[in-house]
Amino acid sequence: MARPLVTFTSDFGHHDWFVGVVHGVIHAVCPEARVVDLTHDIPPRHLARAAFVLEASAADFPPGTVHLAVVDPGVGTDRRPLAVGSRGQFFVGPDNGLLEWAIAAPDAQVHAVTERRHFREPVSRTFHARDVFAPVAACLARGEPLLGFGPRITDPVRLGVPGPRWVDGHLIGRIAFIDHFGNAITDLTEAHLREAFPGVPDTALRVVVAGRRLTGLARAYGDARVGALLVIVGSSGRLEIAQMGGDAAERLGLGEGDEVAVGLAEPA
Amino acid sequence: MARPLVTFTSDFGHHDWFVGVVHGVIHAVCPEARVVDLTHDIPPRHLARAAFVLEASAADFPPGTVHLAVVDPGVGTDRRPLAVGSRGQFFVGPDNGLLEWAIAAPDAQVHAVTERRHFREPVSRTFHARDVFAPVAACLARGEPLLGFGPRITDPVRLGVPGPRWVDGHLIGRIAFIDHFGNAITDLTEAHLREAFPGVPDTALRVVVAGRRLTGLARAYGDARVGALLVIVGSSGRLEIAQMGGDAAERLGLGEGDEVAVGLAEPA
Amino acid sequence: MARPLVTFTSDFGHHDWFVGVVHGVIHAVCPEARVVDLTHDIPPRHLARAAFVLEASAADFPPGTVHLAVVDPGVGTDRRPLAVGSRGQFFVGPDNGLLEWAIAAPDAQVHAVTERRHFREPVSRTFHARDVFAPVAACLARGEPLLGFGPRITDPVRLGVPGPRWVDGHLIGRIAFIDHFGNAITDLTEAHLREAFPGVPDTALRVVVAGRRLTGLARAYGDARVGALLVIVGSSGRLEIAQMGGDAAERLGLGEGDEVAVGLAEPA
Repeated sequence: MARPLVTFTSDFGHHDWFVGVVHGVIHAVCPEARVVDLTHDIPPRHLARAAFVLEASAADFPPGTVHLAVVDPGVGTDRRPLAVGSRGQFFVGPDNGLLEWAIAAPDAQVHAVTERRHFREPVSRTFHARDVFAPVAACLARGEPLLGFGPRITDPVRLGVPGPRWVDGHLIGRIAFIDHFGNAITDLTEAHLREAFPGVPDTALRVVVAGRRLTGLARAYGDARVGALLVIVGSSGRLEIAQMGGDAAERLGLGEGDEVAVGLAEPA
Repeated sequence: MARPLVTFTSDFGHHDWFVGVVHGVIHAVCPEARVVDLTHDIPPRHLARAAFVLEASAADFPPGTVHLAVVDPGVGTDRRPLAVGSRGQFFVGPDNGLLEWAIAAPDAQVHAVTERRHFREPVSRTFHARDVFAPVAACLARGEPLLGFGPRITDPVRLGVPGPRWVDGHLIGRIAFIDHFGNAITDLTEAHLREAFPGVPDTALRVVVAGRRLTGLARAYGDARVGALLVIVGSSGRLEIAQMGGDAAERLGLGEGDEVAVGLAEPA
Repeated sequence: MARPLVTFTSDFGHHDWFVGVVHGVIHAVCPEARVVDLTHDIPPRHLARAAFVLEASAADFPPGTVHLAVVDPGVGTDRRPLAVGSRGQFFVGPDNGLLEWAIAAPDAQVHAVTERRHFREPVSRTFHARDVFAPVAACLARGEPLLGFGPRITDPVRLGVPGPRWVDGHLIGRIAFIDHFGNAITDLTEAHLREAFPGVPDTALRVVVAGRRLTGLARAYGDARVGALLVIVGSSGRLEIAQMGGDAAERLGLGEGDEVAVGLAEPA
């Protein structure tokens, strides 16, 4: 077996010791695992943003990767810890919608973690990343089967994100994430586009966002001249609105949740 | 022997190459060591904050862990580098109070590092993390005995942090650290409370901070309704003031160093 | 062979998943490699700043280190990916001047990466760090020879940074980088000083910057009293302007690119 990989996503920031301690706990339980930080700059308690980070990036990691994610406003209450097998990988986190993408897969095996022998005792009231989730992720990385953590469940909390919809000849989606460069990444995948507009060339599509009409999909950022707005299928396979050499979200005043409509440039 | 673990804490930030270079030096001396960053966002030269990070987190790491900490306004002067064995772990840093928690332990063995053969030559005037501290930490991780670094000393610089005190039936402590979520972590441990108020239930304690009276200790963040202020024993075993779903420090205007008083809710 | 070391520098920031995904790709191709982040806080598209980070830090890493650097406004266009052997190490990044320091060495072997079998397919339009550069860096870490990536070229894009010049008895350089502490690091190395002012003691040099005259080079930050401005040869061997216990750049209003003149304190 290859050396196990554990990713780690949270809203912990980097000003404190929380992220480092979680690394230490994983090391203590599974010294051969490598821990890769996805991001810890999720705004406090912002479940949807963290869920999207997993959705956009998990598929880039090898089969068997364990994804540890902790955005956990309900820490210390009776919300369940989950261990999920899905899409050939593992996911560990609180039962609050954070693991939506993993749970939504048809092959998902969702387990409530009830076996306390995996926990770091005494379990604190406020830091289950250290005491519950990291030990479970490390045990998964060590190869322990999902069944050993607790019973399979069928009622995990769902995030309830509305998917794209079709209205008057337009595919309507939303801006799911604004990245570091100001690119506005939508929830519209290339597959959505192909299904909604079969056989239509990229040049014949028109995207309407924040009152602006952008015609055609670009092949690369570098195709446009500096300052130009463009629509492109980004690296996670989703439509994004970008500005060449600039910050599209700032320029257009875009925010996460804003609607985006895709239609034909020239009505047929 | 398990794979050695080195933690690293500093005021270097992440805009430059300093943290990465220290990782590289440790790797070159002890390739099997794993380096875990605690935080590098200590405000420049803020010794007390970095010392608290070590105090609050070191016990979460396995025995034998080497803690490298560099907040070093006196770099290049004749302040001594220290290597300390304490509480079953090792600590490396400048002799300026940063390692207070390690040094304060009854079992502490404090050594001045004088053996230059461990250093990275030529030793620069301004970057002893690279040239002195990281090589020493890596040699400790490799298993070299404390004695090999230099003589044991009895006069390390102490931070001189005042401990809790007892005034008119109240235990008086201070806010030691405000974390990323705005929780105000005090220097009052659960042991302090039990000693000061033997047999008193959590519900009968009252905490006064910033003119606010908060009655009872909560079991978990999730116990309170959103917006409520609460007092809780946090994950490092210290009393902290929190706001459910919010930022207690911002709401109450709390700052590090502020006094906190604990007494009985109803005078006996 | 020792365990390979890969450094990683970019303008990706830490709010998204981009840095973590690159770590994952390197792990998948070369699990034994260790990845060390230099910085990802380069302002978006700021080539010169990233190039300086490599210049100032690469020599601190062991021979054979692979330096992966991605600041890539031309992603998706026909700008070439490069793999460079230089100064006993390897460098991977876009052909846009980012690898200036490596390319400028007399022993540099610069190769255009054309062999797509190393790439992660399908190659996206916007994330070549994941699909092109990280796989190439990982293959180099695994020991594949430079020749296997593509043809040697002689016309890489150069950054065109002007070097120091000699004007009226003064050596004129520039501020290349302002670090986290507000130290203004110049492009004047200790070797430049010795060549320009042979036999002149440090105390007889005068530095003029932002209209201020600073006489003599300090031995260490700690030599001066708090608040004093000083000039010192920093840890990367370059002259820097510092303020003891403070932020020199803020105090003097210094910016990257500003001129610095070094002359004799007393005209001979």
